[in-house]
Amino acid sequence: MTQPTETVSLQHLSQFIAQAFVACGMPAGDAGKAADLMAKADLMGKDAHGVFRLPQYIQRIKAGGMNVTPSFRLIEDRTSTALIDGDNGLGHLVMSHAADLAMEKAEKTGIAWVGARHSNHAGPAALYAMKPLERDMIGIYVAVGSANHLPPWGGTEMLLSTNPIAFAIPSGTNPPIVLDMATTVAAYGKVKTAAQRGETMPEGWMIDKLGNPLTDPTRASEGFLLPIGGPKGYGLALIFGILAGTLNGAAFGRDVIDFNADDTTTTNTGHFVIALDIKAFADPTLFKAGIDKVWDEMKSSPRLPGVDEIRLPGEGLAKTTRARRQSGIPIPAPLRGKLDTLARDLNIATL
Amino acid sequence: MTQPTETVSLQHLSQFIAQAFVACGMPAGDAGKAADLMAKADLMGKDAHGVFRLPQYIQRIKAGGMNVTPSFRLIEDRTSTALIDGDNGLGHLVMSHAADLAMEKAEKTGIAWVGARHSNHAGPAALYAMKPLERDMIGIYVAVGSANHLPPWGGTEMLLSTNPIAFAIPSGTNPPIVLDMATTVAAYGKVKTAAQRGETMPEGWMIDKLGNPLTDPTRASEGFLLPIGGPKGYGLALIFGILAGTLNGAAFGRDVIDFNADDTTTTNTGHFVIALDIKAFADPTLFKAGIDKVWDEMKSSPRLPGVDEIRLPGEGLAKTTRARRQSGIPIPAPLRGKLDTLARDLNIATL
Repeated sequence: MTQPTETVSLQHLSQFIAQAFVACGMPAGDAGKAADLMAKADLMGKDAHGVFRLPQYIQRIKAGGMNVTPSFRLIEDRTSTALIDGDNGLGHLVMSHAADLAMEKAEKTGIAWVGARHSNHAGPAALYAMKPLERDMIGIYVAVGSANHLPPWGGTEMLLSTNPIAFAIPSGTNPPIVLDMATTVAAYGKVKTAAQRGETMPEGWMIDKLGNPLTDPTRASEGFLLPIGGPKGYGLALIFGILAGTLNGAAFGRDVIDFNADDTTTTNTGHFVIALDIKAFADPTLFKAGIDKVWDEMKSSPRLPGVDEIRLPGEGLAKTTRARRQSGIPIPAPLRGKLDTLARDLNIATL
Repeated sequence: MTQPTETVSLQHLSQFIAQAFVACGMPAGDAGKAADLMAKADLMGKDAHGVFRLPQYIQRIKAGGMNVTPSFRLIEDRTSTALIDGDNGLGHLVMSHAADLAMEKAEKTGIAWVGARHSNHAGPAALYAMKPLERDMIGIYVAVGSANHLPPWGGTEMLLSTNPIAFAIPSGTNPPIVLDMATTVAAYGKVKTAAQRGETMPEGWMIDKLGNPLTDPTRASEGFLLPIGGPKGYGLALIFGILAGTLNGAAFGRDVIDFNADDTTTTNTGHFVIALDIKAFADPTLFKAGIDKVWDEMKSSPRLPGVDEIRLPGEGLAKTTRARRQSGIPIPAPLRGKLDTLARDLNIATL
């Protein structure tokens, strides 16, 4: 019999994460900020990008691969752009700083694009795309993924990551429209989950080195993820890698470190965030009413046989957020076990 | 026996198009600009978006559905953003103006995003993404497509277009990287081409109203295009439609006019273009050397069995451009027939 999955509150989870970071030498203010973002990822249902990643982050910090006391530097600073050096700090801290700077600039000029280098994994893309929503702005975020799982179209060398993109657009009475997607058919986390559950993958997720469909997730290391739309998804992964990596002086292609396999080498992760001020184009109230109209048109449109509901991107995220705010964030037993071990190692209270 | 396809020079083709527009009352300066862009589309190999579209544009002008003497108005103007009202002019004129304005602003601030409403079909997306390359800038262009062919994921009402996106990134010794893609697996033009050639479509391009694969292109009106990556491509089409349409006060969703079926109603087409100044992030020469490195890494990487070459987005475009600059632009006999008829109707010299 499986144990019932216990839940924790957002606040409790955030406090636990903050204590873990503080125990590794991170200043309390930064630890609190990073913890809030990571716990928020769990609240939104981004389970593969929240506290699940904490043991790995701590392992990297302990191995000397991540800096807990970074000093961010503005390498380039124009009226509507900036390039931040994250000094090998946690990606959450670098990119929330970048998003704040982008909003500040966009407030004055209509738009800002802020890139970062020498950063690290920052959790789910939606976190940073959604930040500009606070100020009636549209957010866009792109990252170079933290491990390469995708060859160029027709190739067999994994030179590209699943390089994700996220967009967030506010609505009036409905949840914001939030699209947070990898440029591959399946994110690598979904392959890992299938392996853990002993499930077979559908054809179209991966191919092997001969180009044949790979459906056994335990053989994932023998193949590659497939990009969405074939050469189109390859093109998107390439462009996003250049814009978030090369343009920022961050790692891309053969320079990308597999952060699952290597805890010590600086990853030099690159990302960028765009804040676009709705006021520069339209009255925000009217614009949001327009998004409600889009929402209604899609939801009320006729469906294919067997389809219960048309969904908008971000609808699931909003539902999960509401549910977990009320009933708590589920922590499956295997994850709790890992977090208990971590707590003992760090000599902090368990979750 | 099929006739050999005759070719024309870029200059000759552009002159023909300009004369056609002038014969419809367009001022010579605008006619020349529009003609240069349309002929350039053919030069780049975007055959479905060049002179092929001329008869349809002229038909719309003659029917009163497009304004040949538009006065563009700046509806909104911030330091790094603008919103242009195209006064129902040809999209090529509106969006080349928008791209020029974006470059001018980006030169000062690092980035600019310029949107447009009351515009029309503008040809291939790559044209406007590539314009900023002239000034060592990266270009991005998005449009609301000129007819809806895509339902929301799980739906049957075509509320979305194939809303394309294009990116252009300069390199040093290699061609620029140019990705110009629809958010559907196949663009609608490819379906039309398959029907003309009597070919069957592969599964995955379209489904019928019951959700079954549709492979007979002559039955295209009974089904819908499929988005890349399923719900992901739907999400992208939705977001691009909102950013290029709703945000600009342009048509999106049920308000989109099918410009193939309706020549008289104002389309209120929306697009936007972004110019991103490389100098705001890096030394352009070093950046372009970095893109050459990306190019080399991809090209030299090992290939799947049966694959001759790894290609980069924009490589085919560059090859076609070189070849056609040298040998001319092929005009297939059926297209020439249509253009000859058009020339007679407009009382201008044939191509």
